[in-house]
Amino acid sequence: MSSNDNTISFPELIKLKRDDGQLSPADIRTFVQGVTSGAIQDTQIGAMLMAIWQKNMTDEETLALTREMMNSGDTLEWPEEWLVVDKHSTGGVGDKISLPLAPALAACGCKVPMISGRGLAHTGGTLDKLESIPGFNVNQSVQQVKQILQDVGCCIVGQTESLVPADRVLYAIRDATSTVDSLPLITSSIISKKGAEGLSALVLDVKFGRAALYKDLDSARNLAQSLVTAGNRLGVKTGAVLSRMYTPIGQSVGNAVEVCEALECLKGRGPDDLTELVTILESGEKEIAQKLKNGEALEKFQAMLEAQGVSADVARSLCSDETDYFQHMRRAAHQTELKVQDDGAVLDIDGLALAEVLHKLGAGRTKSGEKIDHSVGAEILVKMGQRVQKGESWIRIHHNSPDLSSHQCSDLQKALVIGSHNKYKAVSRVAEFIQPNNTNMF
Amino acid sequence: MSSNDNTISFPELIKLKRDDGQLSPADIRTFVQGVTSGAIQDTQIGAMLMAIWQKNMTDEETLALTREMMNSGDTLEWPEEWLVVDKHSTGGVGDKISLPLAPALAACGCKVPMISGRGLAHTGGTLDKLESIPGFNVNQSVQQVKQILQDVGCCIVGQTESLVPADRVLYAIRDATSTVDSLPLITSSIISKKGAEGLSALVLDVKFGRAALYKDLDSARNLAQSLVTAGNRLGVKTGAVLSRMYTPIGQSVGNAVEVCEALECLKGRGPDDLTELVTILESGEKEIAQKLKNGEALEKFQAMLEAQGVSADVARSLCSDETDYFQHMRRAAHQTELKVQDDGAVLDIDGLALAEVLHKLGAGRTKSGEKIDHSVGAEILVKMGQRVQKGESWIRIHHNSPDLSSHQCSDLQKALVIGSHNKYKAVSRVAEFIQPNNTNMF
Repeated sequence: MSSNDNTISFPELIKLKRDDGQLSPADIRTFVQGVTSGAIQDTQIGAMLMAIWQKNMTDEETLALTREMMNSGDTLEWPEEWLVVDKHSTGGVGDKISLPLAPALAACGCKVPMISGRGLAHTGGTLDKLESIPGFNVNQSVQQVKQILQDVGCCIVGQTESLVPADRVLYAIRDATSTVDSLPLITSSIISKKGAEGLSALVLDVKFGRAALYKDLDSARNLAQSLVTAGNRLGVKTGAVLSRMYTPIGQSVGNAVEVCEALECLKGRGPDDLTELVTILESGEKEIAQKLKNGEALEKFQAMLEAQGVSADVARSLCSDETDYFQHMRRAAHQTELKVQDDGAVLDIDGLALAEVLHKLGAGRTKSGEKIDHSVGAEILVKMGQRVQKGESWIRIHHNSPDLSSHQCSDLQKALVIGSHNKYKAVSRVAEFIQPNNTNMF
Repeated sequence: MSSNDNTISFPELIKLKRDDGQLSPADIRTFVQGVTSGAIQDTQIGAMLMAIWQKNMTDEETLALTREMMNSGDTLEWPEEWLVVDKHSTGGVGDKISLPLAPALAACGCKVPMISGRGLAHTGGTLDKLESIPGFNVNQSVQQVKQILQDVGCCIVGQTESLVPADRVLYAIRDATSTVDSLPLITSSIISKKGAEGLSALVLDVKFGRAALYKDLDSARNLAQSLVTAGNRLGVKTGAVLSRMYTPIGQSVGNAVEVCEALECLKGRGPDDLTELVTILESGEKEIAQKLKNGEALEKFQAMLEAQGVSADVARSLCSDETDYFQHMRRAAHQTELKVQDDGAVLDIDGLALAEVLHKLGAGRTKSGEKIDHSVGAEILVKMGQRVQKGESWIRIHHNSPDLSSHQCSDLQKALVIGSHNKYKAVSRVAEFIQPNNTNMF
């Protein structure tokens, strides 16, 4: 029996979902409030998450879960005249898109309160990448975020304690209980946080392929559709891009090295696929491309760095046309180049295999709270389809352990596939778009 | 990654069962040892139990789980020449069978180290019933149990801390997470405890019907088969009786009132259905019946009471031919008799409905650790098939709350069905037997 006779008890709630029943919005509120207040036992949260994993949720349940999680803490509010936008990516190897995109959007007049994560991936998350820059402070209060948006237009910050506390509890438990990859749990986790940011519009970059959580287009489309539905029904104009994640995005993978590449992109010199993804993610494609070219996005980035604690000198130097990035960011003790072993064309670079080696070298973390080595990374020196010759360097590994093991070298070499150029076929990163569905909005 | 690279990590274990995989004996050892040592998080136990509930377990997995749980603590050992036997019931309304059965078996020369429970039922468990007797101490050390078996032949005691600690953890969590009714979890919980008792033989009373956990014969047979298989494969000669649980067993329901009825049974004056169940549960039917008739079982019971802390005077008085039981056990403040409302024959007495009212009056507990009122109970004054007249008393409720509410009276009256005598059909309690399957033994 529940202590409050008007409410369903936690075991009854679990039983309902266990037996494939549909939880009412009130049931879901009871669960989320129990999670936030600590009234529900850890054992019960674990069992409920597994029941949800097994039995799934309807769109109605997912929406209620998203809304209750969003309302488990503070929600941000902005001046009415602001167009507040954000982007969320499901994560991929070499994905530094947020770094040029946030300032480019700000340069277009949008406000971008990007709340990002660290993740448990092979390399760090967006916050880790930015922390390669000395002084960069991801911890900003709501008041500070508001001020930075007012002055600069964009910021990239960590989760604030007061936003969506239920998600912090549930996320850690999902990780421990093998219930991460559940459509309603992923959807509610992502969209509740974006809803709490008080966004006008959101674009999602849902990745699929070998180096993504979702291996095929169909499952990525399912997730994207679920996210787009929940986002729009929560009142955020939400659209999605389905993009391929097989080879790394751009030419660099790691933390500091990705910041360098993002800066190059902001200086109009980014690799084509990165620039394509940055510009395509928002409907104002041409405007974004222009802001990357004319330096206005770079200016915003520089201002954001300063606003988030980087010294004016360092910010200016990083953003100047000619600079040695490693004057300001730590360079790994060793750089090892690997050589191409056959003549031919680059047919494949396995982003996942590459990321796994970098993970072992210290670029990522396995457990929440672990330190990562910002200086570890890889620069890929060849492009897909490029003709190469045996003996030519194709990758430069930045590492601090004295030597790469033969096992690591062999894994890296296997990531590169060389073959006849007529077997090469260029593939676009972007596979599909899902437009915000206005008919679903309330 | 697990801290020990030879062992699967807890999230990997959960994922394996989540995805309907089969856990190896080593996997199950990892889980149970994690539960016992506290190395596995509560959230993970909850998720694993729900995954097991959803995906079930093979006989091999169930056996491994049972064995690992049994080995999570001490296991008892006895002199080789002892025939150590026990009985386990899945629980029913008015089920006081253990009370006469244990001493009857002892009178037949068996040793009966009955480890019993309290349960979360509408009325107390066997231990609660016995605690109606002043001085009766269910807490006995392993050494004390051995001494009582040596001297008397039987004892009825609570779970010792050192036996099957994994079950104590899991049982509480199953209750909180709505994962009680899972075949492998029930099987491993029951049989691990019986295995740790070092039994030679075990008989199971698996009940089905309106007032039992299992509502139909088929599901009860599934459980009985699972229990019998696990028991025999663990080396305990295990058989089962499938018995009907619609009307209460015997004529009394509660705690103290059930002790009175058990004593009457030991004095050869028990109700037929109770005496039938007591005698039928062991293959030596006739011998048991004889021990109930000739007073030898009663002598053993008296000796057991004394050995477990009841004063010699009280034990002697309770077991004497003519006695007022309520000289020694607390009588409830009020006795209320309800009247038959029609002429006719007793066609049904709904044991569950009756038990639910007694639960509300204090005879049972809802949460582990709650106190129960031993004096609350019911004496049923009519028998199934009996011809009755309007106005005749059919039930006597023992209660301490000043008045029965009209709601409670109405619920009780609905439990009694009176009709034409030609509609009455006597039904045996026992539906089926499952013999120990020697071919499965190792």
